[in-house]
Amino acid sequence: MSETTSKPRRFQIDFEPIGRRIEVEQGSTLLNAAQMAGVDLVSICGGIGICNSCKLRLMEGRCSSPTSEERDMLSESELRSGFRLACQAIPESNVKVDIPSESLSTPQRLQIEGRMAETALDPAVVACDVHLTPPSLEDLRSDLSRLRQSIMDQFANPRIGIEMAKALPTRLRDFEWQARVALRGSEVVGVLPLETRLMGLAIDVGTTKLASYLVDLESGVTVAKAGAMNPQIAYGEDVISRISYANTQQAGRETLQVKLIEALNELIDTLCQETEVERDQILEAVVVGNTAMHHLFSGLPVRQLGEAPYVPVVSESLDIPATNLGLLLSPGAWVYLPPNIAGYVGADHMALLIATRLYEKDQIVMAVDIGTNTEISLAVNGRLLCCSCASGPAFEGAHIRDGMRAASGAIERMQFIDGEVRLQTIGGTPPVGICGSGILDAVAGMLNEGLLDHRGVLQGKNRRIQSMDGKEVFVLSPAAENGHERDIVVTREDVNEIQLAKGAIRAGMDILLEEADLEAKDLEAIIIAGAFGTYIDIESAIRVGMFPELPADRFQQIGNAAGAGAKNLLISKELRYVAEEIMGQVEYIELTTRTDFQKIFMERLYF
Amino acid sequence: MSETTSKPRRFQIDFEPIGRRIEVEQGSTLLNAAQMAGVDLVSICGGIGICNSCKLRLMEGRCSSPTSEERDMLSESELRSGFRLACQAIPESNVKVDIPSESLSTPQRLQIEGRMAETALDPAVVACDVHLTPPSLEDLRSDLSRLRQSIMDQFANPRIGIEMAKALPTRLRDFEWQARVALRGSEVVGVLPLETRLMGLAIDVGTTKLASYLVDLESGVTVAKAGAMNPQIAYGEDVISRISYANTQQAGRETLQVKLIEALNELIDTLCQETEVERDQILEAVVVGNTAMHHLFSGLPVRQLGEAPYVPVVSESLDIPATNLGLLLSPGAWVYLPPNIAGYVGADHMALLIATRLYEKDQIVMAVDIGTNTEISLAVNGRLLCCSCASGPAFEGAHIRDGMRAASGAIERMQFIDGEVRLQTIGGTPPVGICGSGILDAVAGMLNEGLLDHRGVLQGKNRRIQSMDGKEVFVLSPAAENGHERDIVVTREDVNEIQLAKGAIRAGMDILLEEADLEAKDLEAIIIAGAFGTYIDIESAIRVGMFPELPADRFQQIGNAAGAGAKNLLISKELRYVAEEIMGQVEYIELTTRTDFQKIFMERLYF
Repeated sequence: MSETTSKPRRFQIDFEPIGRRIEVEQGSTLLNAAQMAGVDLVSICGGIGICNSCKLRLMEGRCSSPTSEERDMLSESELRSGFRLACQAIPESNVKVDIPSESLSTPQRLQIEGRMAETALDPAVVACDVHLTPPSLEDLRSDLSRLRQSIMDQFANPRIGIEMAKALPTRLRDFEWQARVALRGSEVVGVLPLETRLMGLAIDVGTTKLASYLVDLESGVTVAKAGAMNPQIAYGEDVISRISYANTQQAGRETLQVKLIEALNELIDTLCQETEVERDQILEAVVVGNTAMHHLFSGLPVRQLGEAPYVPVVSESLDIPATNLGLLLSPGAWVYLPPNIAGYVGADHMALLIATRLYEKDQIVMAVDIGTNTEISLAVNGRLLCCSCASGPAFEGAHIRDGMRAASGAIERMQFIDGEVRLQTIGGTPPVGICGSGILDAVAGMLNEGLLDHRGVLQGKNRRIQSMDGKEVFVLSPAAENGHERDIVVTREDVNEIQLAKGAIRAGMDILLEEADLEAKDLEAIIIAGAFGTYIDIESAIRVGMFPELPADRFQQIGNAAGAGAKNLLISKELRYVAEEIMGQVEYIELTTRTDFQKIFMERLYF
Repeated sequence: MSETTSKPRRFQIDFEPIGRRIEVEQGSTLLNAAQMAGVDLVSICGGIGICNSCKLRLMEGRCSSPTSEERDMLSESELRSGFRLACQAIPESNVKVDIPSESLSTPQRLQIEGRMAETALDPAVVACDVHLTPPSLEDLRSDLSRLRQSIMDQFANPRIGIEMAKALPTRLRDFEWQARVALRGSEVVGVLPLETRLMGLAIDVGTTKLASYLVDLESGVTVAKAGAMNPQIAYGEDVISRISYANTQQAGRETLQVKLIEALNELIDTLCQETEVERDQILEAVVVGNTAMHHLFSGLPVRQLGEAPYVPVVSESLDIPATNLGLLLSPGAWVYLPPNIAGYVGADHMALLIATRLYEKDQIVMAVDIGTNTEISLAVNGRLLCCSCASGPAFEGAHIRDGMRAASGAIERMQFIDGEVRLQTIGGTPPVGICGSGILDAVAGMLNEGLLDHRGVLQGKNRRIQSMDGKEVFVLSPAAENGHERDIVVTREDVNEIQLAKGAIRAGMDILLEEADLEAKDLEAIIIAGAFGTYIDIESAIRVGMFPELPADRFQQIGNAAGAGAKNLLISKELRYVAEEIMGQVEYIELTTRTDFQKIFMERLYF
């Protein structure tokens, strides 16, 4: 009867770096889309284009041409780089945008603290105070000879690298020939005013997040910490896409390295400003990350990491002069990277083994670091077995219809109480989407309520099970309640993503146990590390079958063990020797060569 | 009676890098000036501005505006950089110009060969062939582990620097897992195809000239040599003006380093092309130079070298990764610089001590390396005494009216035969100017002929003693004979310059003898090193009093001993230890602190 109106087109908007995706109707501005998605864009002028607080950068796709308001507010070079005002730009295709941190009102939650094992203080860099006589016609020794001969009273014949030597004459004269010299073995790595504290830096380069810790090398105390997003996200969300970027784009590898180093230099700035520490006081850094992050940070080729059989260039520990990397510390500072175990078990997992002292446990203990790749180690009778499984990005909120990273507004807990859904969001704000721990709770809860069968199919009757686009979904947060004009739901596909993730993790655990002739019940402790692992509900994880059914007190959620391990390695030479030893001893199990892996994995998919 | 005509203005033209200066009348083109000065500028079109073969760069002063011919022949960027056609540009003030080597028809004579003492082959870099199994799912070792475990069968646990590690995966795969690995101690510094020869590079960085030698590390044979001008000349002729440039100009130090490295990279290119050697085959370089050249090459500050008490930043030997310097060798290659002895006795003199084995002589031997600074060492009874004297640039042709460097057309020999002047020029071409050995001969000859008194004043009657600008001069080559419309003469001021130079050198020699309680006649040998020292007539040098009167067979002219020493150090680890020992043992005598120096110097000025 009525005229046929063509259905309005819908575009998909990806908000980076927070990882939120939403579909909007043609004609919505990016600001509308952000508000619908619950992304907290600053918008001081209320969206009329007369401030630039909602500035963001168009990375992929097409928007309407810049308005005259945008031409007023944005510089020529910003416009050229793709910056837009979210309140003015209207998508004309699927788009991906990058939100600068200053345009976000609530920064994403970053996990930067990990539990630290007690570590005896034995740092690679130590102080030596010198009181020199200035040069004169009667004493014509070179600056270095003068310094060296004074140090030799206390230490072995010292050496100096060229970058530190360049800074030496100005410093000795500025400090009037009295100085605190920092020595790394026999090498002069810093020349500072007397009574300056020697500091070190521990860095965990995650695929998604960066965590940095400023540590007093003389006391071992962490005096400041700072986190940020890994800026490489703009060039690929996961390890595979970054390796591909590095290999296929001109200077791709260099770009990824430079962006990362820039972000780390900003973190160092932040740490220094907070603590009134000078960059020159930072005399060493320990950097951990998965093998791909390790290689991209160091500038090593990653081609062979992206092709079978996926071997690293270097598994041994590396020492790189900070100046070679462009990392702005003391000119003599070195960066230490612990050994990688395999192509997909990196220095970050080595740092976890160090932080947890897994190698010296006399119990049977398993350590699990959950991420897009999940690394698992099993300590038993002095053996260390280790594997990596592709658990996918579902726990980071990716591939989940209303998934998002653990940022403000994410549903992080969900419970059925007397059959009613109870939600808890990060920051206590109205729900915007679901992060990893929330979806895990949801699936566990739905299983408990009998709303899912063992294959992951929605079943039973519940007013929250509704039809959407012809499929059944479970409504976690109806639009009417969350204020975003949009239901937040769990779909059958979401449940399947969780099944794939938990199935892979559980298969990895079971194969390690099998290799050691053990059963799950033999495990005396299971250590859960990593951001996601810290926030999950263990009961939910057991309920979905990700973990074996063991008493709750056998599980330990320890936070960022990689960061903690980096800090340990910063203040202990001894632990660096241990890391080398572990590298030589660990039994790496390559799951893809196990003929039974596929079978075990398929079995573990079910609930 | 006649009208007063204003005398035409005259401008002084400095031709660099060959160091020739001439005065011309207003209105002369730069090409006219070059031809008058005997500078062999290429001029294919005959000076009508239709080729660009006489292209040069205006460095200081003002010329006429570029003509339409120049605008046709030179690019915009060349014009902006000050390039001009010599046949078109007319000086409007005193000017200094830089002649690119392609615009010179006869390159300057460079001295690149020095006598080599027999040195046992014991290079820092040695070869180790490996035959590896490729990675597979059953053998997932990293590239480095694979390589390392194969090398460990023959050598201690090897390490790798980050730059070499970056190149490792491509090379191992390109060479199909068979490779010749170059090891420097336990460090992998090169990965080459099997059967490749390991090469090294010895470089002597002179203030004026660069000499480079490509050496086969497995046989010790020098397979090629190449020389060039030091491009830093454009920023200051001598050490002092370069130190001043480094300290006063923005990024002055970096500019001097970059220009030098660029020139060295060109030399390396030349050496490689001549011998079909790849850069990757060059696994180590040894670089020697005076302390200022050493510091400018390394990028070390030179401020304290230009201010009393003139101390170096580093006197110890230095090892610098070639990649840090921008020197294009194997990515793992190191550059070794031997120790400096003092602010004005550099690593080049150390190399001379090594090449001559002066430290192990059981005779009483003196070694003299003559240059703008002259370094002198005396070996006696196991002692090594050493000093430096400011002999000035007269022997390089500077501060001499018709002086020039030892390039084509320079008078290099002069004799009175039956009262007649006989000249010999470099290349046998008509005389253009006088170089150091020529002026020394001229002064000695004039003394023999009774034309100079002991103070250096022209005396006696000779048709060649003529008046010029109201002063008496000695005409070496009349305009009528040399075809340049200009007499080549020796002035009273020229003679004084030679007196200052020879007085300083002789005073230094005498003070060292005095320190050792010796007289000149006790010297069993005098070794004369360096470019100038190779070409001088010893009799002339004795006649002017630069050297003591000793039998001719006690003098040895050995050529570029610094270069020879660099080659020795390239193939012998043992000699590097010796150099360190010498640095600790040599007795450096600072002449300026000697109260009797001025008196001895004044006495030695006379003939």
